[in-house]
Amino acid sequence: MSLIEALNWRYATKKMNGQAVPQDKVDQILEAARLAPTSSGLQPFRVIVVTNPELKQTLLPHSYNQAQIIDSSHLLVFAAWDNYTEDRINAVFSHTHKERGTPEASTADYQKMLVGNYVPRPEDVNFNHAARQAYIGLGMAIAQAAVLKVDATPMEGFDNAKYDEILNLTEKGLKSVAILPLGFRDESGDWLAGLKKVRTPASDFIIEYK
Amino acid sequence: MSLIEALNWRYATKKMNGQAVPQDKVDQILEAARLAPTSSGLQPFRVIVVTNPELKQTLLPHSYNQAQIIDSSHLLVFAAWDNYTEDRINAVFSHTHKERGTPEASTADYQKMLVGNYVPRPEDVNFNHAARQAYIGLGMAIAQAAVLKVDATPMEGFDNAKYDEILNLTEKGLKSVAILPLGFRDESGDWLAGLKKVRTPASDFIIEYK
Repeated sequence: MSLIEALNWRYATKKMNGQAVPQDKVDQILEAARLAPTSSGLQPFRVIVVTNPELKQTLLPHSYNQAQIIDSSHLLVFAAWDNYTEDRINAVFSHTHKERGTPEASTADYQKMLVGNYVPRPEDVNFNHAARQAYIGLGMAIAQAAVLKVDATPMEGFDNAKYDEILNLTEKGLKSVAILPLGFRDESGDWLAGLKKVRTPASDFIIEYK
Repeated sequence: MSLIEALNWRYATKKMNGQAVPQDKVDQILEAARLAPTSSGLQPFRVIVVTNPELKQTLLPHSYNQAQIIDSSHLLVFAAWDNYTEDRINAVFSHTHKERGTPEASTADYQKMLVGNYVPRPEDVNFNHAARQAYIGLGMAIAQAAVLKVDATPMEGFDNAKYDEILNLTEKGLKSVAILPLGFRDESGDWLAGLKKVRTPASDFIIEYK
C-alpha cells in the first residue's frame, strides 16, 4: 500500500477494539519517529510508551475520558525538551562525533553559534521550537502506523501538566505535547468510521509561484 | 522500499544537482501534506510551491545563500495561519458538511467550543499551535519524498518575515514556518552525503512504562 493510500485509509479512530498491536509493528512506528529529521539534528523530544493498564487508567480522567486511552494497546506520549541548554546541545554533537569517528573540533563553531542563539532565548520560545520538531516525529509515527494498517489517533486533548507529573516527565526536563494511542478500529462502534475523509481542496491548500 | 528504509536513505541534502523532480512525484508529496491529520481537522497551514527561477533567486539571500534554494526544482514553503478566527474555523466545518452531506447543526456545539477556546487566546499562542500542525504536514511531505527517492531538505534557516513579504503571505493571513527544497542529491559535491546517519539511541529516545 502506498503512503497516499495509507493516509486515505487512516482516520482519527474514536473506538478501538482492544486487540494488541504486535511488538514488531510498534517498534517500526517508534523507529520512524526516531528517524525523523529535526532542526540541527538535535532531536529535542522523546516518546513515552505506556502499556501498563493501571497507568492508562490513571491517565484516563486527565484525557477527557476518551476511550482510546484504555482501548489502545500502546499509548505513545510525545514529549519535547522543556528548554535548550548548552549541555543538551553539546551532548548530541558528542554522540554524533563518537558514532562517526569525526573530531569534536569540526563542529565547535556551529555548536557555539547554536548555544549562543538558543540558550539566551526565553524558555517558552525554546520549548515551542522543540515541540515543532516533536510534531515532525509525530507525523512520521502516524505515517508508519498507517502503512502497517495500525490505527493511531493523534490527540492534544489531555491535561499536559498532569501527564508530565504522572509520567515523571518534569524531572526529565520534558513536557508532553501530543499523544498517539495505537490499536485497531472497532468500526461498528465508531461514529467516525464510515464518514468521508474531507480535506481542504488542493486548489486552496497549494499556492503556486511558477 | 519500506518507510524505515526510505527514512534511512534520506538525509538533509546540502547539494542538489539541478535535475527537476517530475510533477507526478511533486503532486504525491503535496498530497501527503494535504492528507496530514491536524487538530480538530482545521488544517491551519498552506504549502507554497516556488518553481519560478527569478523568485528563487530573490529568496536566496534571505535563506543564508543556501544553494538548495536554487539547486532544487521545487521549493516548498510551509506557512501556518497567523491566528484562529471564527470565520476560518466555521469555514472548515461548512466545507466538511458540504462534502459529507451532513447537517451544519451537528457540530454547532463543537464549533462554538473551539471558537470560545481559541479566538480569545493571544495571537502568538494560536500561531504556535497552527505551526505545530504544519510540522505534521512537513513530516508527511518528507516521508513521501523519501519513499519516492526524491531528496528533500527541511530548513528553518531563512528570514521568515522576508519570505512572508516576498510571497505575499501576510495578506493571506499566513506566516512561513519551514521550507523544503525538492531535488536530487549531487553526492560528489555534498560533504554530508557519505556520513553515517546518527540518531539518539532507542534506549534513550524511548521511555517505557510496562
